[in-house]
Amino acid sequence: MQEFKQIVQAFESRLQDPELFPQITPNLYEPCRYLLALGAKRVRPALCMMGNEVFGDITEDAKNAASAIELFHNFTLIHDDIMDKAPLRRGNPTIHAKYGLTAGILSGDVMCIYAYAQLAKVNGHLQELLQLFNKTAIEVCEGQQMDMDFEERTDVTIDEYIHMITLKTSVLLACSLKMGAILGGASAENAERLYEFGKNVGIAFQLQDDYLDAFGESDKLGKQNGGDIKANKKTYLMLKAMEAANSLQHRAIEALLERDDETKVPAMLSLFSNTGADIACREAVAHYSDKAFANLEGIDVPKERKEPLFKLASYLLQRDK
Amino acid sequence: MQEFKQIVQAFESRLQDPELFPQITPNLYEPCRYLLALGAKRVRPALCMMGNEVFGDITEDAKNAASAIELFHNFTLIHDDIMDKAPLRRGNPTIHAKYGLTAGILSGDVMCIYAYAQLAKVNGHLQELLQLFNKTAIEVCEGQQMDMDFEERTDVTIDEYIHMITLKTSVLLACSLKMGAILGGASAENAERLYEFGKNVGIAFQLQDDYLDAFGESDKLGKQNGGDIKANKKTYLMLKAMEAANSLQHRAIEALLERDDETKVPAMLSLFSNTGADIACREAVAHYSDKAFANLEGIDVPKERKEPLFKLASYLLQRDK
Repeated sequence: MQEFKQIVQAFESRLQDPELFPQITPNLYEPCRYLLALGAKRVRPALCMMGNEVFGDITEDAKNAASAIELFHNFTLIHDDIMDKAPLRRGNPTIHAKYGLTAGILSGDVMCIYAYAQLAKVNGHLQELLQLFNKTAIEVCEGQQMDMDFEERTDVTIDEYIHMITLKTSVLLACSLKMGAILGGASAENAERLYEFGKNVGIAFQLQDDYLDAFGESDKLGKQNGGDIKANKKTYLMLKAMEAANSLQHRAIEALLERDDETKVPAMLSLFSNTGADIACREAVAHYSDKAFANLEGIDVPKERKEPLFKLASYLLQRDK
Repeated sequence: MQEFKQIVQAFESRLQDPELFPQITPNLYEPCRYLLALGAKRVRPALCMMGNEVFGDITEDAKNAASAIELFHNFTLIHDDIMDKAPLRRGNPTIHAKYGLTAGILSGDVMCIYAYAQLAKVNGHLQELLQLFNKTAIEVCEGQQMDMDFEERTDVTIDEYIHMITLKTSVLLACSLKMGAILGGASAENAERLYEFGKNVGIAFQLQDDYLDAFGESDKLGKQNGGDIKANKKTYLMLKAMEAANSLQHRAIEALLERDDETKVPAMLSLFSNTGADIACREAVAHYSDKAFANLEGIDVPKERKEPLFKLASYLLQRDK
C-alpha cells in the first residue's frame, strides 16, 4: 500500500493548487474548491497513474489524465447528491445544501468541463483517450439513470443490478487504469486486460460494500450497520433474498419494507441469511475478485510491475486479512 | 441567406438521427431527443460550417464540430432553464417542467458529454479545437454565473454587462466560427479575425435584442414588448438609464421597479428615452456591428468567400432592411 499512498500524496497538490480554478466568479468556483478540499481517497487518479507505471515511469500526460478523472468523478458526486437529495458528503454539507441548487448545477457543470480541460493537456493518444473517456462518462450517466429507475421498479433482476453498478461505478475505475496503460504505451491486449481488471475489482468492491453495510463490523466502518436496509435500497442482498425467498419469506420481506422500527434491520438480516442471500453475495464478491486477479495475472509484463496493483486490489477486497 | 438556410437544412438530419442517442435508458435520452426535436435556428453549427467554407469545401470534421457546438448549446439551455425556473422553451415545456428536476440535470449532463463525443470524432487539429472548446465552455458557465450574480446586485456597470453577455452568448458564436476556420486550414490571424467577428456580432445582436424587447414592433417579434421591463431585467437600456438618470429620474426608475401594473412598461420606456438610454443602446449596437464588419473585412481571402457571412450578419443585425 506504500505505493498507493505515495502516489496519492504526490497527486493531491494538483487538486489543491490555488490556480486550478481562477479567482473570478467566486460563486462558481468556491463550491468547486470546497468539495476538492474535503479530501478523498483519490482511488481513480491513483489507478490511472498506477496503470501507467505498470509500463514505465509515470508521465506528465498520465498525471493530467488522472486529474481529469478525479474532476469528472467529483462533478458526478455534485450532481448525484442533488438527485439523491443527500445532505452530507464526506461528513460535510453537500454543495447544493451549502450553496443552493443553482450553485450545485453550475459548479458541477464547470467541474465537468475542467475535467476535459485537464484531458486536453494530454499530448499523446489524445483522440483515443478522449473517446474512451466520453464512452465511460456516458456509461456513468446511464448507470445513474438506471439506479434512479430501479427505485421505482419492483422487478429488478440481479443481472440488471450488476449491470447498473458496473456502469455507475466500475467503468470509471476501469477507464482510469486503461488511460494510464494507453499512455504507458501498453499493447491493446494489455490495456484491455487492465480495463477488465478495474471493472471486476469495481464490481467486487461494490458487492462487498453491500455485504458490509449489512453484515460488517460497524466499528470498522465507522457507521451503523443496516443503512441500506433502513433506506429500502435494492442491493444485491435484497434482490437475491427476494429472488430466493419462498412465499412466506417473500411476504415477510414485503412487510419489513413497510416498517420503520428497530426490529427492521435484525429481521431483514435474518431473512438475508435464511434465504442464503448472504452466502450468495460473498460468493459473488469472490467470483468477481477471482476474475479481477486473473485479468491482472494475464497482463504480459514482469510480475513485479503488477505488484502495486495486486496489493491495492487485495487491500480493497480485503484479501490481505 | 440562401447559403445559411441550405447549410442548416443539410445539418438538421444529424440532430434528428435516431441513432444519435441509444435506445437504452429512455428516461435519460427521451428528454434529449425531445429538446432537439423542438427545432431551432441552429445559428451556431451554421456559423461553424460557414466559417469552414470561407477557406474551402465544408469538411466532415467541421460537421462534427458543428454538432458538438449545437449539443453543447442545448445542454446549457437545459440547465439554464432549471436555474432560471423557466417553464417554456421554444414555446414548449422545458425539460425539467416536463420530466422533472433530476431528468433536467442528468439529461443535460449526458448532452454535454455527447457534445464532446461529437468533437472526439474530429481527426485534424483535435487538441487545438478541444482547448478552444473547453475555454469557451468555461466562459459560458462564468457568464451564466455573472448573469445570476447580477440579479442580486444593484451596482452592475455597463462594462460588466457587456462582459457578461460576451461570455454567456458571444464567445460560443465566436468559437463556432473559429473552429470552422481552424478546420479549414485558416492562418492564425484569419481564424482570430473570424473569432472577433463572431464575438462582436454576438454582442451587437444581444444589445439589439435588449432594444427590440423594449422598442421593437411587437407584431414582428411575435411577443409583447417590455418583457424585460416587467421582469426588472438589468438590460443595457436599464443600466444605461440608471447611469444617465438625474436624481429625479433615478427615483422614478426605482419606484417603477417596485410596481407591477399596466403603466410600468410605458413609463419605463419614457424614462429610457428621456435619459437617452435608447439612443445609447442603438449606438452601442452600431459600434459592435461596425467592429464585426471590420473584422470580416480584415480576413485575407477573396471577398466572395466572405459574402455568406456578410449576408448572415447583415440579416441578424437588420442591416439589410
